[in-house]
Amino acid sequence: MSLPEPKAQTMTRKAVAPAEIAIRRARAEDVARIAELIMLGAATQTMTPKEINAEAQHPGYAEAFAAIDGSPANALFVAERAGAVVGTFQVTLIPGLAARGRKRAKIESVHVAPECRSLGIGGLMIRYALAFADREGVGLVELTSNKSRVDAHRFYRNLGFDQSHEGFKKALDG
Amino acid sequence: MSLPEPKAQTMTRKAVAPAEIAIRRARAEDVARIAELIMLGAATQTMTPKEINAEAQHPGYAEAFAAIDGSPANALFVAERAGAVVGTFQVTLIPGLAARGRKRAKIESVHVAPECRSLGIGGLMIRYALAFADREGVGLVELTSNKSRVDAHRFYRNLGFDQSHEGFKKALDG
Repeated sequence: MSLPEPKAQTMTRKAVAPAEIAIRRARAEDVARIAELIMLGAATQTMTPKEINAEAQHPGYAEAFAAIDGSPANALFVAERAGAVVGTFQVTLIPGLAARGRKRAKIESVHVAPECRSLGIGGLMIRYALAFADREGVGLVELTSNKSRVDAHRFYRNLGFDQSHEGFKKALDG
Repeated sequence: MSLPEPKAQTMTRKAVAPAEIAIRRARAEDVARIAELIMLGAATQTMTPKEINAEAQHPGYAEAFAAIDGSPANALFVAERAGAVVGTFQVTLIPGLAARGRKRAKIESVHVAPECRSLGIGGLMIRYALAFADREGVGLVELTSNKSRVDAHRFYRNLGFDQSHEGFKKALDG
């Protein structure tokens, strides 16, 4: 995940007014921009902006959007500022038996455009995700953040998340 | 998550033969037993076995099973030994835009009955989950484990998982 909020102090000083940010469900025409935001937010990114722009046209992104859009358990959102998409996040609803069937939500692919960080947009996005999950009857919201993203960890703790778990990943060869 | 494998050395000494364990999709009649396994595996469990047995009859568990069973993105499994359910885990398939639409799978609610731990059953379950995800076209498998479960962390590292992320949880009041 990218760093939505590097410094609480900076955020307070320069924060956008919440009314400047519109959060809405992503549409097919947003896909290339969302793919760009994801690539720009990668923990290790060696592509140039031009290469990222070209890569974002790959048909795999549009196919994945169709899968997300067709899944009742998944919702992909964008944050707009002055008509431009400057942020994105995804919420996955997960049923489970634990705690008498408490529904879970997983927030992922949280990214804010590099030029729009430290403005409080990430906080607006996560609060939106929490409210969305609450309306869906979710009892527990979870997310993981790369261990290198120490500023993101503080950001999530400040939003009331408990840093209680270790996160494990394993790539499959296919 | 409960501790499927406290000690690699113990596991090697007493491991069950893989043929002794049958892993299959959960059915409605397994629900109360799965709920028991989840409760027995809780990091902090103060209920007596009798209280756990009574709690597992709560209709919330059967309702949650219906939601899981009706979701094409979710698969709940049980591990049987000599006809008795001794383990459970859930796999959630998650579409996403990142990496040209690489599908993800999340493994959760991994629990082995207390009297059947250290026998290698957890390892058989996770390998089954990885093979299931691979057949579903998944490129990245993820899970989280409570920070107190240091033996489980070693278990997952030994299975090829990268302990690369911090895991955050936030309960919603509802």
